[in-house]
Amino acid sequence: MSGDQPGGATPSLPASVEIFDTTLRDGAQFEGISLSVDDKLRVAEQLDWLGVHWIEGGYPQANPKDAEFFERAVTELKLDTATLVAFGSTRRPAGKVDVDPTLAAVLGAHTSTVCIVGKSWDYHVTEALRTTLDEGVAMVAESVAFLAGEGRRVFFDAEHFFDGYRANPEFALRVLEAAATAGASCVVLCDTNGGSLPHQVQAITAEVVAHFAGDVAVGIHTQNDSGCAVANSVAAVVAGATQVQGTVNGYGERTGNANLMTVIPDLTLKLGVATLPEGRMDRLTLVSRHVAELVNLPPQPADPYVGVSAFAHKGGLHTSALGRAGGATYEHIDPAVVGNVTRVLVSDLGGRAGMAMKATELGVELDDAAAARLSDELKELESRGWVFEAADASLELLMRRATGWTQPFFAVESYRVSSFHGEGASASGDVVEVTTEATVKIWVDGQRVDAVGEGNGPVNALDSALRRALNGRYPALDRIHLTDFKVRVLDGGAATGAVVRVLIDSTDGDNAWTTVGVNANVIEASWQALLDSLVYGLLLADTAPA
Amino acid sequence: MSGDQPGGATPSLPASVEIFDTTLRDGAQFEGISLSVDDKLRVAEQLDWLGVHWIEGGYPQANPKDAEFFERAVTELKLDTATLVAFGSTRRPAGKVDVDPTLAAVLGAHTSTVCIVGKSWDYHVTEALRTTLDEGVAMVAESVAFLAGEGRRVFFDAEHFFDGYRANPEFALRVLEAAATAGASCVVLCDTNGGSLPHQVQAITAEVVAHFAGDVAVGIHTQNDSGCAVANSVAAVVAGATQVQGTVNGYGERTGNANLMTVIPDLTLKLGVATLPEGRMDRLTLVSRHVAELVNLPPQPADPYVGVSAFAHKGGLHTSALGRAGGATYEHIDPAVVGNVTRVLVSDLGGRAGMAMKATELGVELDDAAAARLSDELKELESRGWVFEAADASLELLMRRATGWTQPFFAVESYRVSSFHGEGASASGDVVEVTTEATVKIWVDGQRVDAVGEGNGPVNALDSALRRALNGRYPALDRIHLTDFKVRVLDGGAATGAVVRVLIDSTDGDNAWTTVGVNANVIEASWQALLDSLVYGLLLADTAPA
Repeated sequence: MSGDQPGGATPSLPASVEIFDTTLRDGAQFEGISLSVDDKLRVAEQLDWLGVHWIEGGYPQANPKDAEFFERAVTELKLDTATLVAFGSTRRPAGKVDVDPTLAAVLGAHTSTVCIVGKSWDYHVTEALRTTLDEGVAMVAESVAFLAGEGRRVFFDAEHFFDGYRANPEFALRVLEAAATAGASCVVLCDTNGGSLPHQVQAITAEVVAHFAGDVAVGIHTQNDSGCAVANSVAAVVAGATQVQGTVNGYGERTGNANLMTVIPDLTLKLGVATLPEGRMDRLTLVSRHVAELVNLPPQPADPYVGVSAFAHKGGLHTSALGRAGGATYEHIDPAVVGNVTRVLVSDLGGRAGMAMKATELGVELDDAAAARLSDELKELESRGWVFEAADASLELLMRRATGWTQPFFAVESYRVSSFHGEGASASGDVVEVTTEATVKIWVDGQRVDAVGEGNGPVNALDSALRRALNGRYPALDRIHLTDFKVRVLDGGAATGAVVRVLIDSTDGDNAWTTVGVNANVIEASWQALLDSLVYGLLLADTAPA
Repeated sequence: MSGDQPGGATPSLPASVEIFDTTLRDGAQFEGISLSVDDKLRVAEQLDWLGVHWIEGGYPQANPKDAEFFERAVTELKLDTATLVAFGSTRRPAGKVDVDPTLAAVLGAHTSTVCIVGKSWDYHVTEALRTTLDEGVAMVAESVAFLAGEGRRVFFDAEHFFDGYRANPEFALRVLEAAATAGASCVVLCDTNGGSLPHQVQAITAEVVAHFAGDVAVGIHTQNDSGCAVANSVAAVVAGATQVQGTVNGYGERTGNANLMTVIPDLTLKLGVATLPEGRMDRLTLVSRHVAELVNLPPQPADPYVGVSAFAHKGGLHTSALGRAGGATYEHIDPAVVGNVTRVLVSDLGGRAGMAMKATELGVELDDAAAARLSDELKELESRGWVFEAADASLELLMRRATGWTQPFFAVESYRVSSFHGEGASASGDVVEVTTEATVKIWVDGQRVDAVGEGNGPVNALDSALRRALNGRYPALDRIHLTDFKVRVLDGGAATGAVVRVLIDSTDGDNAWTTVGVNANVIEASWQALLDSLVYGLLLADTAPA
């Protein structure tokens, strides 16, 4: 879809842009992210494998871990497409560049390329720095010149550029000119407060691009406070910007930075602007999920392009049309292009066509008789509160069972789990220690095994007991762990007697899967999802190439 | 920030737009959302309290629950600012409007206003409907005319409008004209595949607005597949659209719909376009979080404006500047305007002033010492996962305790609960009977009482045992019953070891209240919420006029 006819003509659109990733610097400001140096090295490898141009590794003067990252990167990282960038700020007001600690730290990172931030909003120069506008300009000019004189390629981040330009365009442009004249190879317009809207960013960027007429490259750096970080990045490129700064999955302070997992395909697939090297676009989904794992945050299902829901279809209308006319009518791109897949959410199923598509997707061969049995079973299960739209692994196990398969790993005889709470009443806010113990009896390889587990809750205790019972027999279990656990009370009107649905997300490091259990007893529902999770994980380990 | 000088001039910007919420229809397509009719009624109340113009309640023909919603809404909902809208599609190809089941169902919802969707992309008419373009136009015209003839205000959703307009602008406009001529009061341009970018949406919307020159209102409905749903909505308004369709928190199929929690403040606070009635903007954050509770999805911390991280400052540079120069330098808006707060350190639930207001609201007299104790306690509890925003009853009990009060009804010595599951393995879909037994020991009126309860789950068994133990002593208990029960797993990454938050809604027929419990053990968390529920109910019965 080229999208520039009719409407939306884009005369300034560049043929290609450079992708500048700041996950390791700005992204690390996201609430809940705390990266070790090892984590940072692993993230950098992912970024290089994806094919970004620039990896901003950190702010060595502000953060000792970042300084260590640059030290270790020199020996440990073998980068193929990407170049490391050290970040810093301009010299202090009334200071000297050759004794400035920030600039020294930037140089100390020994990168070919550096990025320094300076103020382009007059208000910040006078109020935050408490100096004159002339000195504000000199700080930028001298800092850039000093770093360039030391042989560095210099990018200049113009902080608060859009607010600054609206307040005092002459000063904002003067700062950019100072950076460019002093040797910066790119001036980056930053929407630091994240409050700008695309038509504003597009108009202002176009004015800046026109002003410099190609003398210096113009970049864009956006935050998501208006929910427009991606759109603002695209708008700037439409206006002629040729460097885009953002982060994997949009991590960043407050509401985050521009999500490169969205900006990259938007630019390349929608507007034909080259971003990644040829043949790398289908790595997007994997990189998104792998980095989520590295920073220990759950992947966002609804993320454009790379989310597990991004090409998931639930409505009956859509799913029948998908089967008939192909994805093109209801999907904005072919998901394979970004390494993602179409998922038919099996909800209020009944439709045999949808189920056949689903079986094919899961790689299960269903004959007509099995499909008919399964269709009846699914209708019955759904009427009791089961949903399989998110629980592909449970659905696959169910489909396999419909073909006559039974899981060969173990058989459960019984479990028992008890919680005891003594020592007085609980009142809101009490920290209460509840004793929980589970006993599991199973059969493995013809032998009866029992085990006891303790945990801080009944499900935790059961998980522990089951793993102990299987101990040693299946080494693959060590790699399988549960990453998320969701409980939904159905028919809440029945209150404590209501049916409960439990979803469990699991991973073995390479694959992720979801399982489901439904019962009036939350423990039994959890147990069902837990069993499916382990069985599915063992099945994957069994069928994976050694 | 007006933002239209310099750059981004907006000559077509309307003075106001109507907000059309489709959380109950399109939002319900979000993976993981499954709403009961009760849930839908509660969401509608929130939307009305916020002040949206239109609430699309559902698709009565496609979904029996939606039909029930409209039936109950007539008697149970008292809407102040909002009007309910029933959704449907145009008549079938070669069908008759007066015998069409979808149109009949739309009329059967007995709303003053209806919204019907029809195809405006020629490819979909010929490939998905398999009919002629002329018949495609007739389906739209006749359906709109039929509904208008029955006295309904009709909105027309033009499905795939932007793709259709790019492919065949003449046909796409012909469809809109047919709807307008037949009596539609608004034609809504839908980016159904969600693949459009803001500069495209702005250009095409401007062409449509110019084409109709005010003869019919133009609306916008976007999906987030390019990460631009919000920006596309804003772009359409900049081009002259006057109705914006979206959902609370951006819920919707695949990557979701335009997030109204972002679009509304973008339009009003950034561009000066009126959206909500005067004085309602500060309800945004509360509505966002309350609806998240109702649909049982965790609120997204990084959501613009309303997320808990939206004004959270982590970077040392920013936080010190915040202290020195005030929020204005590092925050794009004053968070109070949208009902949110700046967070610099760890989160703290309200200041002392807010707590005093809350105490007055709940009728509890807090002196300064009690307020200080409570403030510390709340901070500590919140850091452990407690939330009291929805759980007023637990908060009131906590406040009473801070004044030295203790509940006089009973004291708990201990409980024990055991679940036993024998007779073979569970596999997905098995109907499993699990035996659960609870023992509760309590003190009532100086006497030690124990009782045993059975139930279909541990919480049910505990509830039953506790009521048996209190049997006869408090007749008011008979009127108290639990109406809803929600479980949220916090820190899902810890999986089965994670902390669990339970919310219980209760009623005595006249009053409704909500209580909360938090613990790593789901049973203990439920027990805490259950105790608070019964104590609060007994307290109400005690203080109520006989």
